[in-house]
Amino acid sequence: MRRKSFSQMQCPIARSLEHVGEWWTILILRDAFHGLTRFDQFQKSLAIAPNMLARRLAALVQAGLMERRGYQTNPPRDEYLLTPRGRDFLPVMVALMDFGNRHFADEGVASLLVDDRTGQPAEPVVTDGRTGRKIDDAGYRFAAGPAADENVRKRMAYAQRKREERIG
Amino acid sequence: MRRKSFSQMQCPIARSLEHVGEWWTILILRDAFHGLTRFDQFQKSLAIAPNMLARRLAALVQAGLMERRGYQTNPPRDEYLLTPRGRDFLPVMVALMDFGNRHFADEGVASLLVDDRTGQPAEPVVTDGRTGRKIDDAGYRFAAGPAADENVRKRMAYAQRKREERIG
Repeated sequence: MRRKSFSQMQCPIARSLEHVGEWWTILILRDAFHGLTRFDQFQKSLAIAPNMLARRLAALVQAGLMERRGYQTNPPRDEYLLTPRGRDFLPVMVALMDFGNRHFADEGVASLLVDDRTGQPAEPVVTDGRTGRKIDDAGYRFAAGPAADENVRKRMAYAQRKREERIG
Repeated sequence: MRRKSFSQMQCPIARSLEHVGEWWTILILRDAFHGLTRFDQFQKSLAIAPNMLARRLAALVQAGLMERRGYQTNPPRDEYLLTPRGRDFLPVMVALMDFGNRHFADEGVASLLVDDRTGQPAEPVVTDGRTGRKIDDAGYRFAAGPAADENVRKRMAYAQRKREERIG
């Protein structure tokens, strides 16, 4: 993000990646979804250097995805918890998990999400809450939003032309 | 992924991140979804060093997410296209886009997905194809799959205990 490019502009994907676009950061969030809260738990899970872990946790707190909270006073001890914004990252995590299970689980599925009531494996599908339809390339397209600058508008127009060429 | 840890084991999120867990890689995929195909297009969009871009593209080809194909013979020129596996990354991209729009679009929404038939903004929700219900923490839990090793089984049991403590 140091140079002038499409990536540093208004794109919401780039904006998300500014805050979570790092391998360790996403694995810390994953561990937090698994219920891990303490520094030593994350460190053991990830085998990450303490200074690196401290930096990543501070960035997650800074971005409002986690909060740091004292859970003990004598001696003082802190834990790291997902905020509502952090919990809102779950759909990304679910999509990433499903992608990994479908394409890179060579020896079979090791972990997954299940329906708590029935124990049945979830089959994650990204749908449009407005229509209930699956969001795929055939029925949906990228478009400029109200706050789009010239750069984003050009890009979205390009994406639409290419999509029409491809889908016909 | 150099040291023994939960992250290097069977977790499907970690497996996905091995292949796409890098800022540039996800932005290359985003650009490919926007219809960019040529090396110079990616380079201009991302303002990335050519050797870095070449390495990322090669990794995407290696992981089966993109394919390299000659589109011109005189002089020879290649382009990079999403494979079916690469296109299957769309749900992750949509979830990331939506997360960015909800939490980091300070000046308003610059780009989004719209229903191609109506032009209405999509409202992405990850649902369970089996039941049609939204996948959230209240109704779904992480669980060990058939290929889980001891490490994953312990982790999933821990996640379930913590979830019960939290949700009650």
